[in-house]
Amino acid sequence: MATSQLQEQYQARTAAVLSQAIAKLGPLAPELKAAMEYGLLQGGKRVRPLLVYASGDLLAQGDVLSQPSSLPEPNHAALDAAAAAVECIHAYSLIHDDLPAMDNDDLRRGKPTVHIAFDEATAILAGDALQSLAFELLSQANLGLTAERQLRMVQELAVAAGYHGMCGGQALDIQYEGQAINRAALEQLHRHKTGALIRCAVRLGALCVTDMQEAHLSALSEYAQAIGLAFQVQDDILDITADTVTLGKTQGKDVLQQKSTYPALLGLEGARNLAEQLLDQALASLADIPYPTQTLEAFAHYIVNRDF
Amino acid sequence: MATSQLQEQYQARTAAVLSQAIAKLGPLAPELKAAMEYGLLQGGKRVRPLLVYASGDLLAQGDVLSQPSSLPEPNHAALDAAAAAVECIHAYSLIHDDLPAMDNDDLRRGKPTVHIAFDEATAILAGDALQSLAFELLSQANLGLTAERQLRMVQELAVAAGYHGMCGGQALDIQYEGQAINRAALEQLHRHKTGALIRCAVRLGALCVTDMQEAHLSALSEYAQAIGLAFQVQDDILDITADTVTLGKTQGKDVLQQKSTYPALLGLEGARNLAEQLLDQALASLADIPYPTQTLEAFAHYIVNRDF
Repeated sequence: MATSQLQEQYQARTAAVLSQAIAKLGPLAPELKAAMEYGLLQGGKRVRPLLVYASGDLLAQGDVLSQPSSLPEPNHAALDAAAAAVECIHAYSLIHDDLPAMDNDDLRRGKPTVHIAFDEATAILAGDALQSLAFELLSQANLGLTAERQLRMVQELAVAAGYHGMCGGQALDIQYEGQAINRAALEQLHRHKTGALIRCAVRLGALCVTDMQEAHLSALSEYAQAIGLAFQVQDDILDITADTVTLGKTQGKDVLQQKSTYPALLGLEGARNLAEQLLDQALASLADIPYPTQTLEAFAHYIVNRDF
Repeated sequence: MATSQLQEQYQARTAAVLSQAIAKLGPLAPELKAAMEYGLLQGGKRVRPLLVYASGDLLAQGDVLSQPSSLPEPNHAALDAAAAAVECIHAYSLIHDDLPAMDNDDLRRGKPTVHIAFDEATAILAGDALQSLAFELLSQANLGLTAERQLRMVQELAVAAGYHGMCGGQALDIQYEGQAINRAALEQLHRHKTGALIRCAVRLGALCVTDMQEAHLSALSEYAQAIGLAFQVQDDILDITADTVTLGKTQGKDVLQQKSTYPALLGLEGARNLAEQLLDQALASLADIPYPTQTLEAFAHYIVNRDF
């Protein structure tokens, strides 16, 4: 199957799983439910769920004819839960990042942000409830995993989302605003703010595979770390080169907010070279995994070459 | 041991466990860490951790001489994790509730709220990171529980904190502001906003006991539901009868914000009677548990009779 087709398939699956999770919420607080749905189901690239599925389907993709018996069936229930959980964390972070006290963004994916479409209080609460929902989804019974494995996945998601991951990175972003920072500081920021959850997505997908070996998990984590940073470098490049309509968010915002970016530090050409280097690193990490990795390779190319 | 002494002991233990959790956060984002610590360690009654400990210590309290062999040792590591996790959720909810877009409170426990002492962005992030920390603490390895049990505890906390619990209740609170609502609606609000996490605290404590029976867990849940509501009724009474200094928060705020309260619905005397009825219900639920329940009884009395 072509990657773009597979990508669409995973995106559709993500949307279905998230819709189902929202539908299950029941009628208690309709406004909150609507805000959660709005923040979660406005579309987006679904990069993190894609990575969960691609990583978890790893063993079932590719040349099944040459080694049919060694390829276990992917665990769809667990992958769905992990993909939805990771996207809930991502969606909540966008809702809170867009708030007036944070980035003060009115537009996200071409539509009014949650606090504009609803109100600030509801946006704060919707983010909070989406974070809880992530852990509810990931800890549900009957996912076909051992409880040990699932508990480890909860632990990894909590660490990636919290102080040592995404929240810590967002705090660094606030701290550095209006300051010129060096490349090491910028990398530390991004490794936390966006990298931690992308890495977690790849790891959660792999942890859905019963007999995943720790060595392969490490290789996948290296892959994830490289594409996580590449994703951010490309984001910085697009903030300069793309237009607002294509981006679905305000173009040139980084410059306006005096945020340090890779193009600012390395020049546009230097930033493009870095993205290519990181792509090479990601692909090299996959070489250590004795399974078909075409899908993950294709996603790495997509992340660096995307134009929105 | 006298209850007040035991209470102080549990409070001290809670503070120690929370301090340790904060100390472990490391130096990544000092401002965020400071805000989390400020929000978490400003004191407070620690009602939820007390209930975790009291419920989990249940089997080890009381008349150990009469049935020494039937009383298992409490699992301290698990109780500490559960107590800290529940308090992290509670602390994050206070930080977010105090925000200008929510209750807009400058004062909490007699001190500036987190967004006043720091800033709004940091307060939002500190709340977010405390929620993640709760799930990180509860999913950590080596708590001496089976992974199945621990996963169930994560699930219960996620449900109690999220849309079907605390966040949903907070949404109802916002929805009903300035509206006169009836007693059923008020009870639904409180059962979610504060009741869900109090119930969860009691259940998590009990789930730390390896051989806890489901029937006893149900009885404890009924106890918890009664004292959860009693807690709120007493809160409403104190908002009228206590002064700002004693409360550590602005007295008369409910009336000012036109919030529906039990004294407004039932009169002060009616509200006091309801609190007593709920106390009786709580005590009656404990009668079904064949273990020493003095501590839980004493806490129920404390919750209804407290004056701040």
